[in-house]
Amino acid sequence: MATLPAPPHRSVRMIGAAMSKFGKMEQTLREAGAQAGLAAVREAGVGPAQVDHVYIANAFGLVENQGHLGPLIASSLAMDHAATLSVESACASGGAAIHQAYMAVAGGFADAALVVGVEKVSMLGTASATTYFTSGSDFAFEAGSGGTFPGLYATLATAYLRTFGATEEQLAHVAVKNHKNALSNPNAHLQKAVSVEQVLASPYVSWPLKLYDCCPFSDGAAAVVLAAEPLARDLGKEGVAVLGAGRAGCAAQLQERASLVELPSTRLAAEQAFAQAGLAPRDVSFAEVHDCFTVAEVLATEDLGFFPKGEGAAAAAEGRTSLAGEVPVNPSGGLKAKGHPVGTTGVAQAVEVFEQLEGRAGGRQVKGAGVALTHNIGATGGSCAVHLWGRA
Amino acid sequence: MATLPAPPHRSVRMIGAAMSKFGKMEQTLREAGAQAGLAAVREAGVGPAQVDHVYIANAFGLVENQGHLGPLIASSLAMDHAATLSVESACASGGAAIHQAYMAVAGGFADAALVVGVEKVSMLGTASATTYFTSGSDFAFEAGSGGTFPGLYATLATAYLRTFGATEEQLAHVAVKNHKNALSNPNAHLQKAVSVEQVLASPYVSWPLKLYDCCPFSDGAAAVVLAAEPLARDLGKEGVAVLGAGRAGCAAQLQERASLVELPSTRLAAEQAFAQAGLAPRDVSFAEVHDCFTVAEVLATEDLGFFPKGEGAAAAAEGRTSLAGEVPVNPSGGLKAKGHPVGTTGVAQAVEVFEQLEGRAGGRQVKGAGVALTHNIGATGGSCAVHLWGRA
Repeated sequence: MATLPAPPHRSVRMIGAAMSKFGKMEQTLREAGAQAGLAAVREAGVGPAQVDHVYIANAFGLVENQGHLGPLIASSLAMDHAATLSVESACASGGAAIHQAYMAVAGGFADAALVVGVEKVSMLGTASATTYFTSGSDFAFEAGSGGTFPGLYATLATAYLRTFGATEEQLAHVAVKNHKNALSNPNAHLQKAVSVEQVLASPYVSWPLKLYDCCPFSDGAAAVVLAAEPLARDLGKEGVAVLGAGRAGCAAQLQERASLVELPSTRLAAEQAFAQAGLAPRDVSFAEVHDCFTVAEVLATEDLGFFPKGEGAAAAAEGRTSLAGEVPVNPSGGLKAKGHPVGTTGVAQAVEVFEQLEGRAGGRQVKGAGVALTHNIGATGGSCAVHLWGRA
Repeated sequence: MATLPAPPHRSVRMIGAAMSKFGKMEQTLREAGAQAGLAAVREAGVGPAQVDHVYIANAFGLVENQGHLGPLIASSLAMDHAATLSVESACASGGAAIHQAYMAVAGGFADAALVVGVEKVSMLGTASATTYFTSGSDFAFEAGSGGTFPGLYATLATAYLRTFGATEEQLAHVAVKNHKNALSNPNAHLQKAVSVEQVLASPYVSWPLKLYDCCPFSDGAAAVVLAAEPLARDLGKEGVAVLGAGRAGCAAQLQERASLVELPSTRLAAEQAFAQAGLAPRDVSFAEVHDCFTVAEVLATEDLGFFPKGEGAAAAAEGRTSLAGEVPVNPSGGLKAKGHPVGTTGVAQAVEVFEQLEGRAGGRQVKGAGVALTHNIGATGGSCAVHLWGRA
């Protein structure tokens, strides 16, 4: 973490946000990305000439043999002039792209930046989609040796259950909650209530994780506009402020980690974001965390500081992370039920924050939400982005 | 281009740089990237804990089914904690990654950032490599309809020759010069002198471009360390200052361009870089420009402001861009002869600047070099990065 004296940073506000329905998408990456981008830009009221940078969060453009998505999507939005690039950080690509856009605007290199997350895997079969997803792991030592993501997270789940005496039933409550929240999210991929019994009766994918402990493969696009505070004011948009932005890493491979019951990158990124914001976990009204598997949400709620280590599973089972609980987690339905279009996920988390803090989240609205946290990890946590947002 | 008042920026210095020999690489992307990164970090004398961000420039990691290279390479360098991500902007990935690292350090978000470019295509056949490369084009409307990069650049060359009455022989002089320069570069892929006659007699790839008008497919890795000035001073490294950093875009597709004899993204990015540096093209001692095809170097030398539009080909034929000319272009041998490992290219351009401005460029040393320019474009110019560097 940088320690030398830094220049002052500009206040950055999210002034527009939009997303597609997650699930199966007929459009190309360019079309879907441009549609989400256009909706976010319209919401922001920003002119194309005012957008200096365009960041694309995408991991698997090569499924369409299409890289270099930046100019294609920027051109579609009459932003031909803009500096564009694609960011890949496995499943944390979206959070990483938001962090780059934040730095550009806060540092004064761009007055406004558009971040577009877009991903499409539904035309691939499960085997082919799994192969693409495994590119986020350490392929030579993990997935290429048989440890695909359900297996890697099952290793984390096994360690967690054994270390803390937690139960599969406690993990099931995470899925039940997120499926329930997604019922109020019209953009969610899975809109189907499930019971603890159904989760426990679903087939094992990799013990102790069952089908309903796992997020689906989803297509989807999402976009947000970040702007320097004076521009936001000129546009008459209050929007949502970025209060803190943290990014960190840890050893990519599980076998190199000192512990299998925490993700050090989450702790580090959260420390950075909380320190910048001058806030603590108790100040957070709700969080969108990276629940690619139920155990991932439990680990996140502990590593982010909402619950002591080892108590996250019980907290979920006790309803403390439900919409009416002390810290609602994944009101959107999370990756588990809203869906997980890899590069899009971190951007969609910010869209949920925008809708919640603007009071437009309908049946899943968190009452009196003031400060929100987004948490997005790549693979088993080799990379992590944590952002804090608020109306301040 | 951002116009609102910006906070002051820190002075940024390149304090370490290293590259592999380009050509065929046996190592994996992780191994090659870590080796180049380690060499650059050792050159810089920076400790792993002092490196806050690691940027990987890579376009085709999926050839090894390996994305998420950041944590793998950072872990190999004992930088597990670092915030990492991969940047893709087709052939401009390297320049784009350097720009992100520059913003992070200049803006005070990182005290030091490591940029690693790495790419490997030699195990693919020509057809498969061409397919990967075409992902940088507008696949639906260009390469997917038959217009691979030699064809797209042949379109630009045809327009250039016809508009300005330039000749294939003039273009050949670009290849002759760059092959000659590469003879003094031990890391160059092609180390073979060619004559104008040989270039003109080589087989047409796409008229009017012949085999020797085209850069090769290369593997290779390169890395640079950028640090805030106070850290560079603490480490006792003067290094090379970033004087200006520009990035811009233009319509991805040739058919959407108003002109086929200029690349607007080069003009815009150069304007930004020169404005920031308070310099003009006449102040540049030498330039590393993006010569994926001979015509691309000619367009670049005009769009960057070294020669009036339409006079670049004649200038090359007259030796004005040779090592002893008024503005040496591609002393390294350029993409044409040093090689073009896509994501690595823009990083390797900075390595050449480091070696030149440190006076270690041997037989290709530009005498009295004070200010250097690097120019890196994606595809046919949909994205572009221009940096100015100096000893100041």
